[in-house]
Amino acid sequence: MKKVLVLHGPNINLTGIREPGTYGNQTLQTINDEILKKAQQMELACDIFQTNHEGELIDKIHTALTDYDGIVINAGAYTHYSYAIRDAISSVKKPCVEVHMSNIHAREPFRHESVIAPVCIGQICGFGKESYLLGLEAISKYL
Amino acid sequence: MKKVLVLHGPNINLTGIREPGTYGNQTLQTINDEILKKAQQMELACDIFQTNHEGELIDKIHTALTDYDGIVINAGAYTHYSYAIRDAISSVKKPCVEVHMSNIHAREPFRHESVIAPVCIGQICGFGKESYLLGLEAISKYL
Amino acid sequence: MKKVLVLHGPNINLTGIREPGTYGNQTLQTINDEILKKAQQMELACDIFQTNHEGELIDKIHTALTDYDGIVINAGAYTHYSYAIRDAISSVKKPCVEVHMSNIHAREPFRHESVIAPVCIGQICGFGKESYLLGLEAISKYL
Amino acid sequence: MKKVLVLHGPNINLTGIREPGTYGNQTLQTINDEILKKAQQMELACDIFQTNHEGELIDKIHTALTDYDGIVINAGAYTHYSYAIRDAISSVKKPCVEVHMSNIHAREPFRHESVIAPVCIGQICGFGKESYLLGLEAISKYL
Amino acid sequence: MKKVLVLHGPNINLTGIREPGTYGNQTLQTINDEILKKAQQMELACDIFQTNHEGELIDKIHTALTDYDGIVINAGAYTHYSYAIRDAISSVKKPCVEVHMSNIHAREPFRHESVIAPVCIGQICGFGKESYLLGLEAISKYL
Amino acid sequence: MKKVLVLHGPNINLTGIREPGTYGNQTLQTINDEILKKAQQMELACDIFQTNHEGELIDKIHTALTDYDGIVINAGAYTHYSYAIRDAISSVKKPCVEVHMSNIHAREPFRHESVIAPVCIGQICGFGKESYLLGLEAISKYL
Amino acid sequence: MKKVLVLHGPNINLTGIREPGTYGNQTLQTINDEILKKAQQMELACDIFQTNHEGELIDKIHTALTDYDGIVINAGAYTHYSYAIRDAISSVKKPCVEVHMSNIHAREPFRHESVIAPVCIGQICGFGKESYLLGLEAISKYL
Amino acid sequence: MKKVLVLHGPNINLTGIREPGTYGNQTLQTINDEILKKAQQMELACDIFQTNHEGELIDKIHTALTDYDGIVINAGAYTHYSYAIRDAISSVKKPCVEVHMSNIHAREPFRHESVIAPVCIGQICGFGKESYLLGLEAISKYL
Amino acid sequence: MKKVLVLHGPNINLTGIREPGTYGNQTLQTINDEILKKAQQMELACDIFQTNHEGELIDKIHTALTDYDGIVINAGAYTHYSYAIRDAISSVKKPCVEVHMSNIHAREPFRHESVIAPVCIGQICGFGKESYLLGLEAISKYL
Amino acid sequence: MKKVLVLHGPNINLTGIREPGTYGNQTLQTINDEILKKAQQMELACDIFQTNHEGELIDKIHTALTDYDGIVINAGAYTHYSYAIRDAISSVKKPCVEVHMSNIHAREPFRHESVIAPVCIGQICGFGKESYLLGLEAISKYL
Amino acid sequence: MKKVLVLHGPNINLTGIREPGTYGNQTLQTINDEILKKAQQMELACDIFQTNHEGELIDKIHTALTDYDGIVINAGAYTHYSYAIRDAISSVKKPCVEVHMSNIHAREPFRHESVIAPVCIGQICGFGKESYLLGLEAISKYL
Amino acid sequence: MKKVLVLHGPNINLTGIREPGTYGNQTLQTINDEILKKAQQMELACDIFQTNHEGELIDKIHTALTDYDGIVINAGAYTHYSYAIRDAISSVKKPCVEVHMSNIHAREPFRHESVIAPVCIGQICGFGKESYLLGLEAISKYL
Repeated sequence: MKKVLVLHGPNINLTGIREPGTYGNQTLQTINDEILKKAQQMELACDIFQTNHEGELIDKIHTALTDYDGIVINAGAYTHYSYAIRDAISSVKKPCVEVHMSNIHAREPFRHESVIAPVCIGQICGFGKESYLLGLEAISKYL
Repeated sequence: MKKVLVLHGPNINLTGIREPGTYGNQTLQTINDEILKKAQQMELACDIFQTNHEGELIDKIHTALTDYDGIVINAGAYTHYSYAIRDAISSVKKPCVEVHMSNIHAREPFRHESVIAPVCIGQICGFGKESYLLGLEAISKYL
Repeated sequence: MKKVLVLHGPNINLTGIREPGTYGNQTLQTINDEILKKAQQMELACDIFQTNHEGELIDKIHTALTDYDGIVINAGAYTHYSYAIRDAISSVKKPCVEVHMSNIHAREPFRHESVIAPVCIGQICGFGKESYLLGLEAISKYL
Repeated sequence: MKKVLVLHGPNINLTGIREPGTYGNQTLQTINDEILKKAQQMELACDIFQTNHEGELIDKIHTALTDYDGIVINAGAYTHYSYAIRDAISSVKKPCVEVHMSNIHAREPFRHESVIAPVCIGQICGFGKESYLLGLEAISKYL
Repeated sequence: MKKVLVLHGPNINLTGIREPGTYGNQTLQTINDEILKKAQQMELACDIFQTNHEGELIDKIHTALTDYDGIVINAGAYTHYSYAIRDAISSVKKPCVEVHMSNIHAREPFRHESVIAPVCIGQICGFGKESYLLGLEAISKYL
Repeated sequence: MKKVLVLHGPNINLTGIREPGTYGNQTLQTINDEILKKAQQMELACDIFQTNHEGELIDKIHTALTDYDGIVINAGAYTHYSYAIRDAISSVKKPCVEVHMSNIHAREPFRHESVIAPVCIGQICGFGKESYLLGLEAISKYL
Repeated sequence: MKKVLVLHGPNINLTGIREPGTYGNQTLQTINDEILKKAQQMELACDIFQTNHEGELIDKIHTALTDYDGIVINAGAYTHYSYAIRDAISSVKKPCVEVHMSNIHAREPFRHESVIAPVCIGQICGFGKESYLLGLEAISKYL
Repeated sequence: MKKVLVLHGPNINLTGIREPGTYGNQTLQTINDEILKKAQQMELACDIFQTNHEGELIDKIHTALTDYDGIVINAGAYTHYSYAIRDAISSVKKPCVEVHMSNIHAREPFRHESVIAPVCIGQICGFGKESYLLGLEAISKYL
Repeated sequence: MKKVLVLHGPNINLTGIREPGTYGNQTLQTINDEILKKAQQMELACDIFQTNHEGELIDKIHTALTDYDGIVINAGAYTHYSYAIRDAISSVKKPCVEVHMSNIHAREPFRHESVIAPVCIGQICGFGKESYLLGLEAISKYL
Repeated sequence: MKKVLVLHGPNINLTGIREPGTYGNQTLQTINDEILKKAQQMELACDIFQTNHEGELIDKIHTALTDYDGIVINAGAYTHYSYAIRDAISSVKKPCVEVHMSNIHAREPFRHESVIAPVCIGQICGFGKESYLLGLEAISKYL
Repeated sequence: MKKVLVLHGPNINLTGIREPGTYGNQTLQTINDEILKKAQQMELACDIFQTNHEGELIDKIHTALTDYDGIVINAGAYTHYSYAIRDAISSVKKPCVEVHMSNIHAREPFRHESVIAPVCIGQICGFGKESYLLGLEAISKYL
Repeated sequence: MKKVLVLHGPNINLTGIREPGTYGNQTLQTINDEILKKAQQMELACDIFQTNHEGELIDKIHTALTDYDGIVINAGAYTHYSYAIRDAISSVKKPCVEVHMSNIHAREPFRHESVIAPVCIGQICGFGKESYLLGLEAISKYL
């Protein structure tokens, strides 16, 4: 059974509360439940982790070296400047799918560029909580 | 039953032949078969159209005004400069999902920016033919 | 009697349907009728042509070499990147007036620059269908 | 009867003397006479004012708050950097048409961008003195 | 006997008429005759095609997959923005020589960059109709 | 008793009328009254001056050489391009506080950069009429 | 009684030691005492927190959702690149005043742009420890 | 006897007071005396005018149409953004020498570019009051 | 005996595992052993610390105020955007040598600029683990 | 008999040794022999000169004033920054053909721009030693 | 008696021959004679040197350390990119006046920026051979 | 015994005289003596060469093809624009270490980018004469 690590970056703990027009009004707990259910359907083992700390995201990504077969990451705003997260992903050499709930290419210009995209296998954005579920499906097919 | 228009832009007719390292080695015919099968599973009516002509893509998008509930488009290289296709999509006011077989954000800088993204609901890229299938799923959920 | 060619570029066929807040709610047919009426008042012969195809706009502009004394063009989104249309206009060496229904200088930055403007005699934008009528008047005075 | 304020910015007092290749060889007096005649034909009351001073243009624009229904302005070179004039126009909330005798988009790059355009309803340029007459017509239709 | 496809892009049909100062005063027919004569001398089979349509250029380039050993292309103004033509050339994996009658590097800045150059084997520009003949020679030596 | 010069730049005379969503709906007279009252509380002598003319702002700033101990300035749109006002402030070598009623860093990009900021001791923006009162307090503490 | 959260970002713990020419020579403890005294005068409840960790700043900002009515933040160097802190502020939807001890607009260019400014109500900079006191006053008036 | 107009722009009235390290410590009066003395030696009639108002500089430049054979101008900070002064100089078609007391190319980047230079015959900068005397000599030789 | 702090930034814990083509195949433990041995030879006391957290790097740098005479830092990817680490280094006013195992100037453009370099005494990059040893030697000579 | 000067710039003496993947594996001597043979066939007198010194290239170009009818130059890396060589070419007013063995437009971005191209009649690049032979042919046809 | 070194950079040996519209039609010999005559009048010892080699200009500038009191330099096109010449001038710490025969600020954009200006005391350009004579006068006054 | 070539570029002959604040006050002779002594300690044969001429640096680098095992180069200001030196280094395919006495990343922006860095194995800067000694050590370890 393949193991996948799902990572939520900064401010995603406020989903459902934070700008519902942009991110939907379901809480992170509800979304996590759907992720786990979907993983189960696809026969993937799946751990989920949320943090607002860049360093903790890096620490977690490093655990993929030994503990996971793939990563699904929504790095939040770190997406746009954290070259340290980018290096973490390329260091562990596990396939990584980048997801965003909002369509980052339709928002402010600084959100159009993802510095982690060049070390991920693909990007899915704009579908709210569905972005995670599609991301799981994509990593599952890839593995 | 919802109707979806799947559009393939320039050079996608050569898929399977063209740079298999980047785009995989299945032909467009095979991919189209999988798209139709997936659509059937999701109970979507689905038409597929490929052209190398910017103007024909615009003409086709216009048909969505009366004939379709949503669009899945891989605009190929037009993605990066065709403001005319962008205007076509925003004119017809139907939900549109942008897909790419390769991870455009991991390639040459000119491929990082999509001029049609701001008028689409979301973007999926990097998963080869799976990008289309995930795109269908996304539009299906949205509708 | 002077002959003028009026060209409508991509997506203008949807005028009246497409973003009425920006382009007004009269259909292209109604606008064309007003253009022809105005031309008649000014004693100009006038042909009107709409296409979504860049190549067809170029082909039509070429006909001005032998068939028209001047051109009024709304090149739609091609205005902002079609150096091929620019070269077509400068090749036929007939006076050309650039018109836009919306005020392109008040919209997204990419719409501020017109690549065809340097080969036109002037530009009129922002007045809805009146832009065409003012354009006719301008070319008429120039001829 | 609607009242329109026509404003001429810096150096326009030298029209007819200044670079006739670019601006034509009629003096400002002659042009003003034509503007007034045209206004009369359209049953518009019309005041005309020329100044080389940015501050005086702002003062005059402010008078539109109480004294005019619309403005036609050729802000000369201030067009390209006077954010103060831009703010004046948006402050008085009266429709304003921007005109230029030369085709600013066909000249030096610094003349391509108008900082006042985003607060005007439209722009007309390139037709010599006719730009003013077309501008009057445009504001008249708008009012 | 090797087969070469010679492609003329937009506005080249007007050569001899269009800006003779820049492009010389021989018509395209005369130039084509010289190209065919030169090809015969070099024992190359040679087909020539002109179109103003970006999509038709792409369609034609695709025919090189099965029908030609090499391409000589003057993509006209598409040279500077058609990433779709660039992808077409790299898709068919046949050697391609880029030619221009004028010295594009001595003209407006937008003509200095060729987006198709990175997928061609070389570029020849500035020698009027000779550019084509030199291009034929270059592809001939390469094959 | 310390003397402070409060300067209002272009269009601020329309405060209360001009874009109340952005600038509040109190008139300049009311704001000036509050400024004078606050100055009195802080035992500052205070003169207030408004003009739409860049040159008059410079002339006034020069009077600070002999007549004032400090300056509070809202240079309006001149903030973003008047290097002449910047030089005036640095010439008189009196402490100067820059204030804005709106949060200039949250508006159009051209309003993010202040060319006078590098010669002021500090900047206060975004608090409506309170920006002036806080500015008075800041200069008072500094003196 | 309104509750305000005062946040000090990275390196501010060294105030009084770090570059006294730029930041003054009072320690953070002294400054905090003055902040609390001022808050008391204004009848505001006030908590103060300093950290060098971006993630902890985000965590603290999130507490404002339930525990505070407003925020005064000096995000230190994070001001210029932490889009994650920006998102935190906009997520909690509480009024936030941005303060800096130095005049960031008079220092290195990278300090001129604040990425958090667009989600704050205003900015105060350049007045040393007074910036905090003025910030308290501003938030107090706003609440 | 040739007539020359010497123009001093904004803040130059403070010369001798303003930043003596950059501009020297002689007052404008002393400098003007030296200019007049030098003019006399060279048998030039010479008028001198100083103003802080952009509009007045333009008005004065216009007088050169009928009253002067040449202009020596130190436009102060207007040098770097006043396209209106640039147009004034090119409108009157009299030779104009641009002078600066400081070496503008050795100061802040915004002072490196002169928008009036392209319409002047030459530029002299960096020699304090001598810049004016050298400017007089240059215009004298030119006339 | 002088005391030196050696800091390893994000992802350096994976050295030997991470991209051996770029960073060599010795583990961080081995490298640290060599650093300590070298320090001993040079009679330097030396502490080594690795973290993936930007805030922890800042906290550690602050300890240099009282505990160290100099710093050798490889800030990993934070090198390119952490203005907070830059401020930390300039705050403690101890000499700091910047080192990198790879030649950052020969990699992606974003790695060419170091935002901490302007506050370090020098930079050494490109020599794998030797970069640290050379850095120790450099700080030793400097102290 | 026409005389042509063929110039080889910096590092071309190492051709055949230097990066054979890019420049082929024939030595400069062999290439020069082919150039001379081709010149003889075309009845051109031809001198060849190689130097690594910018100044010597300029000196040699100056000899074309009196001694040559045309120039074929491969300025090597000087192509991309030597405005001095550009001025030399435009000073001698003899037709000059720019050649490169590699396709400079397909390499690093700094090689895409040629500062000498605007003063040459044309450019040929990408065909290895053939670039010189085609260049000779081009200059021969031109003369 | 003060000693001045006059340096002519690349292509200036062709003055009188090279682009007389831009540089006048007097030969360098004639100009040098006028320079020496002017120097004699001002009681300056003066050596003149011309070279097309950047390295020789640097060598000559170095001689100013011991042999000259000041330098007048026309560095030709090296003005715009030779940071090595800039460093040479700042190394010898002798006053240096930069001169150009043409008005570099009125020509191509690359000629607007002088990389040597920041280490010169001033710049004189646009007056043909007079630029040198004015330069001598300026250095003489300065010494 | 390995042979290393140490190259000093432009203006380094003036070290000890030139800007001692930046480059130290030891002469080049003293530095060379230390380099030779260090080389002897490391059992390296070492030749040293200084020149102000770009072409001579290239010529010398070419000698490394046959005469040296590695290069240590301080290319002075050529570092920032000499693509010709870059090509020379990459042509000879010998390991090259780039050194600078000053910390180029802490000086003017133009000194931050090294065009030769991408073809060197590493860079050492900021340690005065020690930069050379560390460079020798680095090349020695590499060989």
